[in-house]
Amino acid sequence: MARAAVVGAGMTKFGVHDTPLQELFGEAAFDAVDDAGVEMRDLDAIYFGNAMSGQAENDTHLGPKVASHIGAAGLPVQRFEDACATSANAFKNAVQAVEGGTHDAVLVGGVERCTPETGKDTPEMTRIFASASHRQYEQPAGLTFPGVFALLTKRHMHEYGTTEEQLASVAVKNHSHGRLNPRAHFGKETTVEEVLDGPVVADPFRLMDCCPFSDGASAVVVVSDDLADSYDAPVDVTGIGHATDVTPIGDKATPHVTQAARDAASEAYEQAGITADDVDFAEVHDCFTGAEVMASEAIGLVPDGEGGTYAAEGRTSLGGDRPINPSGGLKAKGHPIGATGTAQVVELTEQLRGTVGDRQVEGADTAAAHNLGGDAATTVVSVMEARS
Amino acid sequence: MARAAVVGAGMTKFGVHDTPLQELFGEAAFDAVDDAGVEMRDLDAIYFGNAMSGQAENDTHLGPKVASHIGAAGLPVQRFEDACATSANAFKNAVQAVEGGTHDAVLVGGVERCTPETGKDTPEMTRIFASASHRQYEQPAGLTFPGVFALLTKRHMHEYGTTEEQLASVAVKNHSHGRLNPRAHFGKETTVEEVLDGPVVADPFRLMDCCPFSDGASAVVVVSDDLADSYDAPVDVTGIGHATDVTPIGDKATPHVTQAARDAASEAYEQAGITADDVDFAEVHDCFTGAEVMASEAIGLVPDGEGGTYAAEGRTSLGGDRPINPSGGLKAKGHPIGATGTAQVVELTEQLRGTVGDRQVEGADTAAAHNLGGDAATTVVSVMEARS
Repeated sequence: MARAAVVGAGMTKFGVHDTPLQELFGEAAFDAVDDAGVEMRDLDAIYFGNAMSGQAENDTHLGPKVASHIGAAGLPVQRFEDACATSANAFKNAVQAVEGGTHDAVLVGGVERCTPETGKDTPEMTRIFASASHRQYEQPAGLTFPGVFALLTKRHMHEYGTTEEQLASVAVKNHSHGRLNPRAHFGKETTVEEVLDGPVVADPFRLMDCCPFSDGASAVVVVSDDLADSYDAPVDVTGIGHATDVTPIGDKATPHVTQAARDAASEAYEQAGITADDVDFAEVHDCFTGAEVMASEAIGLVPDGEGGTYAAEGRTSLGGDRPINPSGGLKAKGHPIGATGTAQVVELTEQLRGTVGDRQVEGADTAAAHNLGGDAATTVVSVMEARS
Repeated sequence: MARAAVVGAGMTKFGVHDTPLQELFGEAAFDAVDDAGVEMRDLDAIYFGNAMSGQAENDTHLGPKVASHIGAAGLPVQRFEDACATSANAFKNAVQAVEGGTHDAVLVGGVERCTPETGKDTPEMTRIFASASHRQYEQPAGLTFPGVFALLTKRHMHEYGTTEEQLASVAVKNHSHGRLNPRAHFGKETTVEEVLDGPVVADPFRLMDCCPFSDGASAVVVVSDDLADSYDAPVDVTGIGHATDVTPIGDKATPHVTQAARDAASEAYEQAGITADDVDFAEVHDCFTGAEVMASEAIGLVPDGEGGTYAAEGRTSLGGDRPINPSGGLKAKGHPIGATGTAQVVELTEQLRGTVGDRQVEGADTAAAHNLGGDAATTVVSVMEARS
């Protein structure tokens, strides 16, 4: 039984954009609304995500600003911020609202600018991103996010023998997928050797183990299940799980397990009435190569400890057992933080409609999206299924 | 018919706090949970509001941080930011979630630090607050929020002849009410003469027409209607309206009308099955004295154009026709932005239970809260009623 349906999807190319946030969001929003075949006046509300624009661009209270820009002033719109899980949370709350009968049709999306187009260079943006780590215990120690995920990944390597070559193979795979995605930030292939030759950012991560800072926007139109059939190409949302984990990292008993992802996935699968075995492909939050390894295990697509070997063996590539990040993931598609969660939903929607061309996962009818925030202390897992 | 019920309420004293955000929020959260007679493990989710901590304290992704601090790690928690309407939006989404059957019992609240305890002085915080104004059209002109509300209020004065003395009477009233509130930032009375003798901040506002920057937190426990009777002192939530208005100010046809407030109030009253005449008292968003005048008219407690005269004649004072801001309002109680919306809900809850002592509105059984964000481009109006 569907909780809701996505009936329209849109996103900008991820990359570098010299465009104010409301205009960048508008590009994705207009695409989503056009794709759904609706007008702004058909919508009841907007669920909007942005993570860092206050710090990056001194631009907050974006809800009415984006609504005004897209011709939807008057609609209720609220902004969500949950670090990198920002717009997955907007999506979750939107699905709850249409499922609970509050609204019939809503727009959900997010926008972010993270490149020097904001006026902030990479060291400054790294400091801003680090605001999502613990203010009292972690920031004073100089911990930034490459270090956060390096700590989790090092533990995974210690527990399971995961290697730097295996991590590099995740980057190789996702760049290979991203080449097939015209909206991806990066359009070039890489090799394990090239990744391993890169400069160390935070051991074990080299430059190419890390996703980029990107600008971009994404949006979807979500409607209640009973209205879905009146649209051209609905895709069902059958489960959304959301959990948090204890923070800071030092308080996590088993940091590499990413417990919130396991809890969120269990909840989402239970709602959908499926198990992990039913998932044909997934978009997961590969902010770093090690993060994909842990995510692929946490949501059950790969046995614990095998995330690295599966990637290296091509089992999570397009054409493999169960592809992970056919879009190119954060690693190659890019990571405009507040847009990332709904961009995963865009990819699921288009894949389950069978409209993505060369990167199509053949025969897919059930997919999962895994979007995490901070030190994996927030995770939202969504399950979508082709409408039968 | 109730949409949900508030069964526990708590807040810190508003003022100056040298306390990390999660600890400050914890104080309010523990109060709310104790008041409801529940344990953290009885809650299903947390709906959390904070507006400016990224910019003020480089502290984001606060959801898991506050959940971890209060012993609720694991629960789904999302952060809302809608400028000064931040935690009213968290409250709205929480009510939708329990009404729609997603959750049974949730914690809702907000926290903010705005004083120099953040490390930012008043000019810096004024610039940070201005991030809620239009980034491209207003910020470059140097517009900050005293100026925003001065523009709206000047138009009101032009249309209706509202005077500076009438504005001052709003400050006098709210300071008088605030003296009766032990959790208010300010505990002293003022006079019309003292207000008018103050330095001009943004014409027509003098220093005492402006609410303070405060630190503080507030929280409530919200449960579904069908569970409410199993708690000691439930107060019904019968309506919540939420609307936006076009922004920037220059695009508003009639800025002093604060159209979003009118739309939100209509929606809330319709849900509750009441009219404005049924509202016994209200907490409104008096970030500046002129804002209270416009709000009191927009939600229908005072005829259009009469907000100033009603205040000056004492008709909105405790003991008057229909009191406005018995808590002291933002003006005297204080304005820790992300905590303000749920602090209004705390006041409504305690008033409707009849437990606030000297500032009790006698015989009140229906009340409204009006929480706005930015240049009044977001407004949430909530109606609460004593459970019959």
